[in-house]
Amino acid sequence: MNNSEQLSGKTKSVMNSIGENARIAAEILATASSKQKNTALLSMAEILLDSSDTIIEANKLDLDTAHKKGLSASFIDRLKLDKKRIESIASGLVTIAKLDDPIGITCDKWERPNQLKFERVRTPIGTIGIIYESRPNVTSDAGGLCLKSGNACILRCGSASVWSCRAIQRCLALGLKISGLPDHSIQLVPTTDRSAVGEMLRGLNGAIDVIIPRGGKNLVSRVQKEARIPVFAHLQGICHIYWDREADIESALPVVINSKMRRTGICGAAETLLIDKETPYNCRSVIIKTLIDSGCEVRGDETVLAIDDRVKHANLDDWGTEYLDKIISVKTVNGVNEAIMHIAQYGSRHTDCILTECYKTAELFLKKVDSAIVLHNASTQFADGGEFGMGAEIGIATGKMHARGPVGVEQLTSFKYVVRGSGQIRLE
Amino acid sequence: MNNSEQLSGKTKSVMNSIGENARIAAEILATASSKQKNTALLSMAEILLDSSDTIIEANKLDLDTAHKKGLSASFIDRLKLDKKRIESIASGLVTIAKLDDPIGITCDKWERPNQLKFERVRTPIGTIGIIYESRPNVTSDAGGLCLKSGNACILRCGSASVWSCRAIQRCLALGLKISGLPDHSIQLVPTTDRSAVGEMLRGLNGAIDVIIPRGGKNLVSRVQKEARIPVFAHLQGICHIYWDREADIESALPVVINSKMRRTGICGAAETLLIDKETPYNCRSVIIKTLIDSGCEVRGDETVLAIDDRVKHANLDDWGTEYLDKIISVKTVNGVNEAIMHIAQYGSRHTDCILTECYKTAELFLKKVDSAIVLHNASTQFADGGEFGMGAEIGIATGKMHARGPVGVEQLTSFKYVVRGSGQIRLE
Repeated sequence: MNNSEQLSGKTKSVMNSIGENARIAAEILATASSKQKNTALLSMAEILLDSSDTIIEANKLDLDTAHKKGLSASFIDRLKLDKKRIESIASGLVTIAKLDDPIGITCDKWERPNQLKFERVRTPIGTIGIIYESRPNVTSDAGGLCLKSGNACILRCGSASVWSCRAIQRCLALGLKISGLPDHSIQLVPTTDRSAVGEMLRGLNGAIDVIIPRGGKNLVSRVQKEARIPVFAHLQGICHIYWDREADIESALPVVINSKMRRTGICGAAETLLIDKETPYNCRSVIIKTLIDSGCEVRGDETVLAIDDRVKHANLDDWGTEYLDKIISVKTVNGVNEAIMHIAQYGSRHTDCILTECYKTAELFLKKVDSAIVLHNASTQFADGGEFGMGAEIGIATGKMHARGPVGVEQLTSFKYVVRGSGQIRLE
Repeated sequence: MNNSEQLSGKTKSVMNSIGENARIAAEILATASSKQKNTALLSMAEILLDSSDTIIEANKLDLDTAHKKGLSASFIDRLKLDKKRIESIASGLVTIAKLDDPIGITCDKWERPNQLKFERVRTPIGTIGIIYESRPNVTSDAGGLCLKSGNACILRCGSASVWSCRAIQRCLALGLKISGLPDHSIQLVPTTDRSAVGEMLRGLNGAIDVIIPRGGKNLVSRVQKEARIPVFAHLQGICHIYWDREADIESALPVVINSKMRRTGICGAAETLLIDKETPYNCRSVIIKTLIDSGCEVRGDETVLAIDDRVKHANLDDWGTEYLDKIISVKTVNGVNEAIMHIAQYGSRHTDCILTECYKTAELFLKKVDSAIVLHNASTQFADGGEFGMGAEIGIATGKMHARGPVGVEQLTSFKYVVRGSGQIRLE
């Protein structure tokens, strides 16, 4: 047996006991009261605030390594924790405590002619595995959401943030303990051995029910390819705006600019603008010039190139690219049907928007575009659980099973059928 | 390249084109009207009836092979088609046509302070892969349910029923065609090459969204182990009845007998009876004697053995066995909590029942038993989509994602968020 096999054998046994601990914690969490869970969330928040100095110290270790490795300024910014950021992490937990408890809620209720009473009642899923990269706040955000929804969780942070995440997780575990809930409810994988991720993707002998990757395209794509258990994720957010011939320029133009430019690095940022060829030239010209003037690079087809010298040539790759930057691709299309076809071919089924005053065209788009979120006359940047009124979210999913769109506490639940009778037997 | 590699290469290309055809059909089905889908279902039923002779002839080929192979009488009975069975297959499609169309239904609806209007609208999942064994009626039942829910389906029957299933599928495809829907909406894998199943379990390059296995434990267990895409299934139905100290013998005894004996071969049949040790001896004695007198073999622990000479000794394996036969294991437990623990250890999270007149004990059981269906004072044989009032079902699922319990047309759907605005942009 060589070293790496020994290492991986050890990781396997560590991971299996983490799985077993989670299973036991999940059983207790499943019937924990709202009060118990909320008390724990508030304790966790308090302990985080009280431990600011320790967390910042731990964070310094991660920052030092990042500096030594010459990681980018934006990477280091995501990694960095200060008093203000720790306050915001703690207040995230308080917000989660204030959400309605999704567990035990009766979603449907009906009675049959034989007087059997049926209820569909929300239950936790069990154990959620979360694999993330450098942002230490995910430790607390994800841990809090899982706790609120009655699920145990197993967290696997990136090696770059391991000291910070450990410090945060210790606060969460302590908060759980003093509230009388199992401290194994929120576990952090202690090793940075990459084979631990593989173990999680195989589900730890059935201990993990669903995997949620939080990070870049490489991470999500690996998880989607290798996972043997369900995954809630989106690979990319190639979000489209279709500008219809009947768009109202006054209300539609701010939506385009906001969709692209409010924050360019989020998955709900628009990446491609499809302009109906029947849109008047003047109007098309205003759209392109306003985009460029707002600091956005425009990559267009021939028709768009003719509008302004500053437009760059879009090539085939542009239609399938998530820039996450101040760049937008612009294509001229022949009406709503060609827009729908373009989105079906190049989109990522995340969020797509139509701008039009024509009710019929809007309904056609909303019906035919098969994305998690379809919008009419509103910014794609609303693709966010908070903006949906669903409270905090753990991410956005583009799959079609169970969770689609923002994944908040409600989406972290399952259900069971409860049937109440008075001695009914089945006659035929 | 050897023969088997060539064969499997050919299968791969056949399967990929089936996947591609399904994808195209699914796109059209997704927005087909209820009228179109119902017309197709009724045409399919009519054509099935008109083709009875052809189907019976095809069925003879399968029966001949089955006889030659010396397959069991019960196997041959499941395989056999006659006029009456074909009528029942056709009337199954008529029943599905009468169900409400689940697609396009608004499940939730809300408005945000910024006047954005949110809807969660039901959409089809896409393409469903169904892998089944010898019952030819699954071809039509599954095909009809998928069509009603706007999904394409790819059917893979067992080799023993291939002629019968082909004959039925041809009727379905013709019904689709004359109703103006793609005949590829319901495809049957043309080859009996086993590698076709492997291809389906890998999802045909993303063409299949979910796999539903219909058959015995071996099939389901292979599918659950090898599938790289979501599976709706139950591996076993080890259903429990817990007889509490406060059960009312008059109403509870018929429930026990019905749960076990109405039909012993279905997944909702009770397999284990847990009797509270505080139940009076007389009462326990009546339960055991009534079971035995009704023709059921009882395998019990020491306490149960002492009740009647005809009781056999239960060993450890009995607690985890799905008999699907006139056999029941009976264990004496110390109250509801031990019953809940026994079910957590040996159950299959399918359907479990408590018999008691005590509200508090019942609620504890219903809350703590983590099964798809939990019943109070009613037969476990109600574990059936029809009895739930959900209409026809494609099976029962014990997973916790998306579909749990009976899988009917509603459970074969996904959803999307439709957001309607009037130029809202995101300010912060």
